[in-house]
Amino acid sequence: MEATPIKYGRGAAEEVGWEVRRLRMNRVMLVSDPGVIEAGITGRIVELIEAEGVEVEVWDRSRVEPTADSLQAAADFARDGEFDGFVAVGGGTSIDTAKVSDLIATHGGEIMDYVNAPVGDGKKPPSPLKPLLAVPTTAGTGAEATTVAILDIPEQKVKTGISHQYLRPDRGLVDPLLTMSMPPEVTSSCGLDVVCHAAESYLSKPYDARPKPDSPDDRPPYQGANPIADMWSGKALEFGGKYLRRAVKDGGDVEARGAMMLGASLAGVGFGSAGVHIPHACAYPIAGLKHEWQPPGYPDDHPFVPHGWSVIVTAPAAFRFTYDAMPERHDEVAELLAGEKIEKPDENTLPEILISLMKDIGAPSGVRELGYTEDDIDALVEGAMKQQRLLVGSPKDVTEEDLANILRESMENWR
Amino acid sequence: MEATPIKYGRGAAEEVGWEVRRLRMNRVMLVSDPGVIEAGITGRIVELIEAEGVEVEVWDRSRVEPTADSLQAAADFARDGEFDGFVAVGGGTSIDTAKVSDLIATHGGEIMDYVNAPVGDGKKPPSPLKPLLAVPTTAGTGAEATTVAILDIPEQKVKTGISHQYLRPDRGLVDPLLTMSMPPEVTSSCGLDVVCHAAESYLSKPYDARPKPDSPDDRPPYQGANPIADMWSGKALEFGGKYLRRAVKDGGDVEARGAMMLGASLAGVGFGSAGVHIPHACAYPIAGLKHEWQPPGYPDDHPFVPHGWSVIVTAPAAFRFTYDAMPERHDEVAELLAGEKIEKPDENTLPEILISLMKDIGAPSGVRELGYTEDDIDALVEGAMKQQRLLVGSPKDVTEEDLANILRESMENWR
Repeated sequence: MEATPIKYGRGAAEEVGWEVRRLRMNRVMLVSDPGVIEAGITGRIVELIEAEGVEVEVWDRSRVEPTADSLQAAADFARDGEFDGFVAVGGGTSIDTAKVSDLIATHGGEIMDYVNAPVGDGKKPPSPLKPLLAVPTTAGTGAEATTVAILDIPEQKVKTGISHQYLRPDRGLVDPLLTMSMPPEVTSSCGLDVVCHAAESYLSKPYDARPKPDSPDDRPPYQGANPIADMWSGKALEFGGKYLRRAVKDGGDVEARGAMMLGASLAGVGFGSAGVHIPHACAYPIAGLKHEWQPPGYPDDHPFVPHGWSVIVTAPAAFRFTYDAMPERHDEVAELLAGEKIEKPDENTLPEILISLMKDIGAPSGVRELGYTEDDIDALVEGAMKQQRLLVGSPKDVTEEDLANILRESMENWR
Repeated sequence: MEATPIKYGRGAAEEVGWEVRRLRMNRVMLVSDPGVIEAGITGRIVELIEAEGVEVEVWDRSRVEPTADSLQAAADFARDGEFDGFVAVGGGTSIDTAKVSDLIATHGGEIMDYVNAPVGDGKKPPSPLKPLLAVPTTAGTGAEATTVAILDIPEQKVKTGISHQYLRPDRGLVDPLLTMSMPPEVTSSCGLDVVCHAAESYLSKPYDARPKPDSPDDRPPYQGANPIADMWSGKALEFGGKYLRRAVKDGGDVEARGAMMLGASLAGVGFGSAGVHIPHACAYPIAGLKHEWQPPGYPDDHPFVPHGWSVIVTAPAAFRFTYDAMPERHDEVAELLAGEKIEKPDENTLPEILISLMKDIGAPSGVRELGYTEDDIDALVEGAMKQQRLLVGSPKDVTEEDLANILRESMENWR
């Protein structure tokens, strides 16, 4: 169990200057994105940091769903800037961009050196990075609490990541007031990502049912379901079931915003320990293979599938498939989301609860809506099978045929 | 929210050599106590560390309920030993002794310089300490997860502590196999400490009902009840209710041992964030004022009141007193401990559940059994009132008269 220290509460971001000082930063690269800058959030944060006598240079070109190229540009800026610390203000993209910038600024090299093998060289950073403070402005990725940075490799039509414990931010400031301007579609996608992180973690193969590694060095960050991760994931499921509809319906509902934001961090710690599996493995090719869908509510500069939606579309079928590996735990997830005891649950209970939530908050109905047909299933399966790092966490073994069935069932979750 | 990284599981302690290496230690002071050494645990740990080519010197004189003098001896040894890291193998005493030894070895000075004001000078360590790895062998204090070291000041008839975030161990190895030889009385006292940590945290004044400090510098480590601490404390209460009787009854029940051990760490994180209040404030004078009681099951070299028992004796009356400040939350604690929904709970429900647990696991019946009479109440109140650092966490204001009533009601919790 390892967790980024989190300062949570309304107004927590107002203490950013003091936190930057505490982390002994004197010259900061602040990574943000145009939407957050336009909302006035970034400017206020810069002001607060500069008021402590700390120099700030803003990198404002974080791109939603970053590529190795877009990250390399930020990393080059970081390497040339002689910064002694990093601050990220934004969603998962900005936080991941800051992680990678910090990595390259501290240890040099090219981004592909560090990208998970076999896509990249899987090189490990030899020592801790410069300090990184994360100030999330969405309630989804939990990137402030994780040790990964996700990126798109368009040439290989695959999404993958850089994953190492040194990528974990030193501290997160989680302030619900920063998410108030998030449009309902973004709230929906981010919130469903939280729900999937938590449900997949809770439903991953238990840590003590997996083979013991020869050395602690070989133990992967994703350990499988365990009592500590359950605690985090369970609470995030409870929050998702209780508050996500409210946060989408009324962006001004501070209580719901706060719970979803905290839920995102909790789920981040949970899946950072237990791991995610089938829905996330399928999400990578769903987001990476075609770039045709222009999501409502997001910047219209390039078509893409927002991460949370790419994940949730296969979740109902995936959990129907895994049900018989651990029925009680699936029922527990259903009850945590429903917020009540369910009489005589079966393999359709959790899928139905998820579908009802998706409908209520305007999620896409399935893989077809995102631009795919049955003809794409083979290619999607091939992409998902590359994510063996994730698929080993499934509570039962997954074949190509299983994945094809899951994707076929996920074409339309409802009509 | 800040938490010591914890590696939990049967056999986790077997990885101690690897962990010591990871923390870059080459010459270690290993703090342990005679009971743990006799049980063969310390020897095995030393062997595992030396197998990694690391030098180990054992300090075997940790004394249950340490004093400034007993700690100073360990600290002198630490300062003279040129160690670059510390390992604690034992209960809260060994872990606290290691924290203080590390502090003095890193920053010099005398122990009383750092003891909380007004008893000591309250000096703050200027920078982080040398690495400390904690390997608990009891399931109680959660010292592996906290930022305090507790000590007795016999001259002032008071127990107090050194409290700073740099005292938090770098890592904990929580291995239920190490607690198997703990006698039932020690399991009882330690387990009731866990229950009190969790219950008091859950029932402390909420973080957002307390005044905002002028600067983040002035924010105390104990913040009051908050949604993250609730998660930790809630799970510890659940474990305490479900497994403590089993762990006391059958020391060989590995599942129960594991849950109590994990519960101790969880509660440590919980109270490290939310804080404890009335029962712990009363426990200090109960343990500090008279040293007449020789507890069964503990080393018979000096009379003292084991910490968990000194805390639990006033808990029923304390929670009866605080009930009307937050009735629902008291009911939630009762239900978490009972493991079931309770119909029509009132102010006596939680006290009765605690008393039933105390009876079942051989706890003392009250303050009288520990050597006190009504004539001592004034002195006990005076001692408890000194713990304002804790009492501010009570969900309602506490006067001297309130404390006197609580102590009077706690003379016998049953006859």
